[in-house]
Formats: sequence, C-alpha cells, structure tokens
Amino acid sequence: MKNKNISSISEFGLIDIIKKQFATAKNNKNIIVGIGDDSFCFKSGKNNICITKDMLIEDVHFKKDWITPQNLGEKAIEVNVSDIAAMGNVKPEYALIGLGLPPKTSEIFVKNLSNGFKKACDKYRITVVGGDTAKSDKITISVTVVGLCKEKVIKRNGANEGDIIGVTNTFGDAGAGVTLLYKYGAKHKYNKDEYFLISKQNNPKARLREARKISKYLTSLTDASDGLYISVDLLTKDSDKGADIYMDTIPISSSLKKVFKEDKKQLNFALFGAEDYELVFTTPKSKSKLLKKLVPEISYIGRINSSKKVEYFYNGKKQKIKYAGFQHF
Amino acid sequence: MKNKNISSISEFGLIDIIKKQFATAKNNKNIIVGIGDDSFCFKSGKNNICITKDMLIEDVHFKKDWITPQNLGEKAIEVNVSDIAAMGNVKPEYALIGLGLPPKTSEIFVKNLSNGFKKACDKYRITVVGGDTAKSDKITISVTVVGLCKEKVIKRNGANEGDIIGVTNTFGDAGAGVTLLYKYGAKHKYNKDEYFLISKQNNPKARLREARKISKYLTSLTDASDGLYISVDLLTKDSDKGADIYMDTIPISSSLKKVFKEDKKQLNFALFGAEDYELVFTTPKSKSKLLKKLVPEISYIGRINSSKKVEYFYNGKKQKIKYAGFQHF
Repeated sequence: MKNKNISSISEFGLIDIIKKQFATAKNNKNIIVGIGDDSFCFKSGKNNICITKDMLIEDVHFKKDWITPQNLGEKAIEVNVSDIAAMGNVKPEYALIGLGLPPKTSEIFVKNLSNGFKKACDKYRITVVGGDTAKSDKITISVTVVGLCKEKVIKRNGANEGDIIGVTNTFGDAGAGVTLLYKYGAKHKYNKDEYFLISKQNNPKARLREARKISKYLTSLTDASDGLYISVDLLTKDSDKGADIYMDTIPISSSLKKVFKEDKKQLNFALFGAEDYELVFTTPKSKSKLLKKLVPEISYIGRINSSKKVEYFYNGKKQKIKYAGFQHF
Repeated sequence: MKNKNISSISEFGLIDIIKKQFATAKNNKNIIVGIGDDSFCFKSGKNNICITKDMLIEDVHFKKDWITPQNLGEKAIEVNVSDIAAMGNVKPEYALIGLGLPPKTSEIFVKNLSNGFKKACDKYRITVVGGDTAKSDKITISVTVVGLCKEKVIKRNGANEGDIIGVTNTFGDAGAGVTLLYKYGAKHKYNKDEYFLISKQNNPKARLREARKISKYLTSLTDASDGLYISVDLLTKDSDKGADIYMDTIPISSSLKKVFKEDKKQLNFALFGAEDYELVFTTPKSKSKLLKKLVPEISYIGRINSSKKVEYFYNGKKQKIKYAGFQHF
C-alpha cells in the first residue's frame, strides 16, 4: 500500500477515511443525525439531543498573542453553540471543557480563559458540567456542548429544487481580520474598520437566536465555519442538488469594503475566508419575505436547482470559481 | 495578584479554579451528576444520559514509539468507557472523536488508529457519530462517549460508615508497565511477565461488564485512573467519610510480583501508579459475598469510617503514606 502522509490528504479526506470506517455502524434507530453534519443528534424519549465537539488548537486555530484569553474562552463556547444553532431550534444546555495547557501557562491566563468560558456560557444559560485537564505543548481547548431540541432538527440534506439560499449578516470579515493579524500582528494600531474585522475573527457570535426564529421554515441549514463556498457545497452535495450563486448579492460589510477596496478580494474573503459562523440555509421562495421580517440581517444569494453543480455568476456572467480555501492539512 | 504559573498548581488545583468559576451554575434540576465525577449525567425523560470526555495527548499520556496506533485507538475508547462504567449500569451508546494530528502523520497510522477506535467501539456496540479533525504538533485524541442509563447512577459520594471498600482485578500493573517502557524502551525484548505489565498500560480494558453486574449493590463507585490512593481519597472526601486501608489485601498480580520483587515497590505502583482503570467501590458488608460470587475478580481492601481521614495499615501496623503520584502539572 502506498503510504501517503496526511498533509497530502485534505482535512475532508481525513474525515472520509474515518467516516468510511464507521459507515456500517450507522443503523441505530435513535440516531437522527450521524457523522458528517454540524452536530450529532439522537432521540431520547420526547427530546432530541444534539451534541457538538470543536477543538481550538494554538497556532492552528489561533495565536496566543492575537487574542485575549477571555475572548479565546468565549470563542471556544461560541463556535460550539454555532454548531448547535446549525441544527435549528436547539437550546444549548450543558458544556464539557477539555483543556490542554503548557506548564508555563500563568494562573491569570487560566482565570481569564475561564472568565471567557463563563461569560459565553452565562449568555446562553449553559451549565458547565465537567471537563478534563492535561499538560500539552500548545494550548488545546476541546469543548463539547449538549443541546435539547423539542422540534425537528434541520439537517444539511433537505434542500429542494427551487428553494432559495439565504445567509445571515455579512461574509468575509473574519477571514479579512485574520489576514490583517498575519500582516501587521496584534500590536499594530488598527483603525475602526480594521478592528471590526479582527473582532469578527476573535470574538464571533453564534447565530442561535436567528436560527431559533427561522428554523421551522428551513429545508436545510449549516453554519459557515469554513467559508461560504464550502457551506454551499455541503448543502447542495448532501441534498443531491445544485445551485446558482449570484456573487453580487453576497453581503459584504462596509468595513470590509473600506479596508480591502477590490471587489475580487472582498468576494475571495467571503467565499474562502473561514470562521464567519453565519447561518447558510435554504427555504421555499414563498417564505423569503417572512424570514427577512423575522431576521432583517438575512440576504438571499442564490437558488437551488437539480443540476448537481454549483455555478457562480457575477454581473450576470458565469464565473470560474476554484476552491482556494484554508484547510488544516 | 501573585501570578503563579500552572506547573506550581496541581492538576487538581487547576480543576478547582475552573470548578469554582462554575460552582454557581450548578442548580439545574435535570443535572444528576455535575462537574467533578467520572461522567456528567442528566435526566432526559425516563433516561439518564451520561457523558464523558477524556483526552490522550502524545508525550503526556503516551509516547508514539511505545504503543501501536491500533492500541492507541482502542485505549482512547476504553478509558472513556471506563468513566462510563464508573457510573454503574450504563450502556455506552455513541462516541465523538476529536483528532489533532501532525501533518507528517502517515495515512497508515490514521487507518490503524481508526481500526483501533472501531475495534473497541464494536466490542461495546458504540456508534461513532461525529468528530473533528485538526492539525496539531502532537497527536491529540479527545473522545466523548455518551451512555444511557435506566437505573440510578452510582456517584462517588454515597459511601456509608461501615461499608467495605472493594476493587476489581489487580493494581499497579499499568504503572509498572510504563516504568519498564521508560527504562528499556519499546524495542527491548521483554519476558512474558514484563509484557503483561506493558499490555495493561497500552491495552487497558474498561470494567463495564463488572460494573453492570454489581452496580445495584454499590453505595459509591469510581475507576482508578490516577492510582488507588487517589481513588480512595476521592470516594472518602466526596462522601465526607474516612477509611482504613489494609495494604496486605491490595491485589497484586503474579507478574508484578515477579518483575518487581520488593513488597514496597509493588505497593507503590498499586497506590500511585496510574491507569489501572479498575473499579473502586463501596458496598454494605452484608453484600460482600454476593458481589464476589457475581465478579470473582473482586478483592476487599478496607473499610469506611467516620474519621474523615484515610489511614493505611500493613501487617497490622499503621503506615505513614504520602501522596507520591503522577500529576500532569
């Protein structure tokens, strides 16, 4: 057997190796959502229980100098709540926090990190119920959030032909923010717009309230943790459909427009910049106005079709878009 | 504020900082077992749901050269199932696997690791339902196991005065095994007894079947992941009791006796060597014979009293025992 190393396999390829291994084990009648969605969900009595698990590793997901320990703690919770929000109307209830810390870590750092966990957990009324600590070379935070859902969970695979594709807020900000940090570091004096982009990277907010308001009208749903391009790809592939995306309608913040003036750059961040944690969903066209009334920060960016291809249009012209995103491996 | 670094705080001190932060958040009526037991448990309809989370980090919990990737995968599941077993008659149902891997990791390593996950999950009929992969400097495995329990869960805090303290199988083997690996490395030619000790370190087995058989007779229960001394300390402290431990009755394997001939060394491994993953429990004296009939591998090593101190006796003489175990920080 040819023995590749995993840097030649993508992160998604790696998940595929593991998914394949466990594909046969999926026929458990209580499992509502198995491997490969934003959260795992199973039935327990009248409840659906959703569980998510996301790791943040120093120098992979963050640099210690770029983010305050409190923001880091908040973010570790928010990104998990975002995965919970991506299942629809789910109430996050409990968190387990696994912490790997280098022995030289200061007690103040741990306290501030813990303050961040607490701030985000208090906001969502999540109870921290356990965890695990260990020594490690790099700061490693592995959070598990448990949510309860009394309604149907919204998977990635329910998009229908003719549905329109909606998103919340703006895209590309977090990716632009991390680009600024890479270029100028944390100590640079940033202006207000640059600071907005950086805070979208360092202090993201899960769209739980928004998901709760609109979930019953949605046919599919995910959160954009790896860029809009990947989110659209996941929704269409899992639904066995295609889509037309109108790039002119992708919402871009005024800050992103001011800091990176080129259209092409803005769209590049929007499609391939990770960590926006905005909702990406499909809904019947008939519901589009209602949803925008419920959540004014919604924009519509495209339409589902039966082609099994995702095509991108800009000013009415078809564009060749190649995946150019960030993957861990 | 004096800013200590965490190497001057113990692992348990670190958990205390975090526990304190979240102590106020504990009044949720569905929580049966909160922060600080082997698993977190909450009520959902008629079920109790137990969730556990344990990390294995390269060069902290294992060295890559000392353990095969398949054993490592099995162990990552077994240690979590052990935490589930420590709650009584709980059926582990689902696993989420978080993997941090260095980019140079070979595909074969990942496949063998995944084979290990699968072997252990198949054994317990656990369905792998999700996970997360990321790049990291050191191999980092963070597993979450979800178990269902239709009976009362057994906590650490129910020991009564007069209860006797029981354990399964033998103690000290895993600690002795890792000592051999430190001393002679993985390539050394080990004899049968040495190999037994190393395999207890590298290939531990959760005592799920045993816990299930005896759980309804137990007043408190934990698994010995950090040595017998710590386990007894946890059970007595959480129960607000004390204990007398008769060191002559601590079960020591014939392999440990052959490889490390000194009594004192054997007991040192048993009390302070980590990762035996055996059950440590208390039960009314009247049940002791019944339990030994159900699980012949049980030994009794002491008795609960109201003193709030744990005292150790050897050949009838009180011994001064000081904590000398391994902590991550």
